[in-house]
Amino acid sequence: MMQGDIQVTVPLDSRTISPTMKGYFERCIDFHTYPAPGLLIGVFMVDYAVELLGAVPGEKLYAVSETNKCAPDPLQVILNCTSGNHRLRIIPIGKFAITVNRPSAEPFTDGIRVFVDPGKIDRYPVIKTWFTNDPSFSKKTMGQHLVDEIFFAGRDILSAEKVRVQVTPKQQWQSARCRVCGETVPEEMLEQGVCRGCGSMAYYERYGAAT
Amino acid sequence: MMQGDIQVTVPLDSRTISPTMKGYFERCIDFHTYPAPGLLIGVFMVDYAVELLGAVPGEKLYAVSETNKCAPDPLQVILNCTSGNHRLRIIPIGKFAITVNRPSAEPFTDGIRVFVDPGKIDRYPVIKTWFTNDPSFSKKTMGQHLVDEIFFAGRDILSAEKVRVQVTPKQQWQSARCRVCGETVPEEMLEQGVCRGCGSMAYYERYGAAT
Repeated sequence: MMQGDIQVTVPLDSRTISPTMKGYFERCIDFHTYPAPGLLIGVFMVDYAVELLGAVPGEKLYAVSETNKCAPDPLQVILNCTSGNHRLRIIPIGKFAITVNRPSAEPFTDGIRVFVDPGKIDRYPVIKTWFTNDPSFSKKTMGQHLVDEIFFAGRDILSAEKVRVQVTPKQQWQSARCRVCGETVPEEMLEQGVCRGCGSMAYYERYGAAT
Repeated sequence: MMQGDIQVTVPLDSRTISPTMKGYFERCIDFHTYPAPGLLIGVFMVDYAVELLGAVPGEKLYAVSETNKCAPDPLQVILNCTSGNHRLRIIPIGKFAITVNRPSAEPFTDGIRVFVDPGKIDRYPVIKTWFTNDPSFSKKTMGQHLVDEIFFAGRDILSAEKVRVQVTPKQQWQSARCRVCGETVPEEMLEQGVCRGCGSMAYYERYGAAT
């Protein structure tokens, strides 16, 4: 498979990979479009977290990804905790870590947090060089070795902890119209009558009607 | 199919739905886990935006969703612009709107923005009641009617515009260790030596080692 501009072999037919895990990897790579190292580690993380939570396949779970790099995708594909269905929160802390928990009517609930443990990667020199973004890492010459080490390590670079997480309730909202563009947004998202799209979060400039 | 606690029929075998669109709907509903109204509208939006951009299936595109409600999922499933592969940005403006554009080496590039047009929903009373979050909307008694109206309307509630969007370059980073938890994050994400997970973005309380 291509990983950026290099060709890598993902050892999905290794004896250590169960058919279930193989299916996870295949679906995640297809969704993400390539076998990114973080994606592969993320599959091991999700599988581990679900096992520690004692959840069964198909059970409705909620998840957090502490980074927007790769890790959200295994949570989306394997657990159906998606960016659009309110079951995935991406909290940009910058860590390769995830949390999973069950639904709860209480304001707090128990969950499992799994993370790449900096104390455990010393045994895996290529993973360490990549994970710490060391200038000596070269995707071109070390990409395949990195994938091999990730599969060799599996859960061995991960740690897990029991955590209590806040449950985020569904918010009530009323529709309001932006006085600049005329489009509607939830009222509490207006900034002095102007939507964020015309205000603090402007990200485009309109230059013509398409229809 | 179940939509929350009500049963709805999604008219995927209607003559107006092409086999390609039917496949989009099925894959999006499967990913999202249920046929949410916003998800169904989102499929029409993505299909429309891609057509206006003149893109072909499988082409590498980038996308923005201006809401975290439903709309990210059709972008992820149909275009493989995912939360984890850097091709989807969710900008929480609060609008049911998306933008798609091609890759570009320039700082700005042309794209297509598609949005649910408040000026076009008057003809669709159930969509209007739902979209404006009017208290008279009842999912239980109007859920099926809403789905039917969404399929009857198709693109008729959407508008599109040509926009110029900023291209976000990949950021360089160096690894640094949080002085509280000892985990590593990109250096610029530290707040006075402490990571956001121990600082401003704390979302969990640790109560035990799981392993």
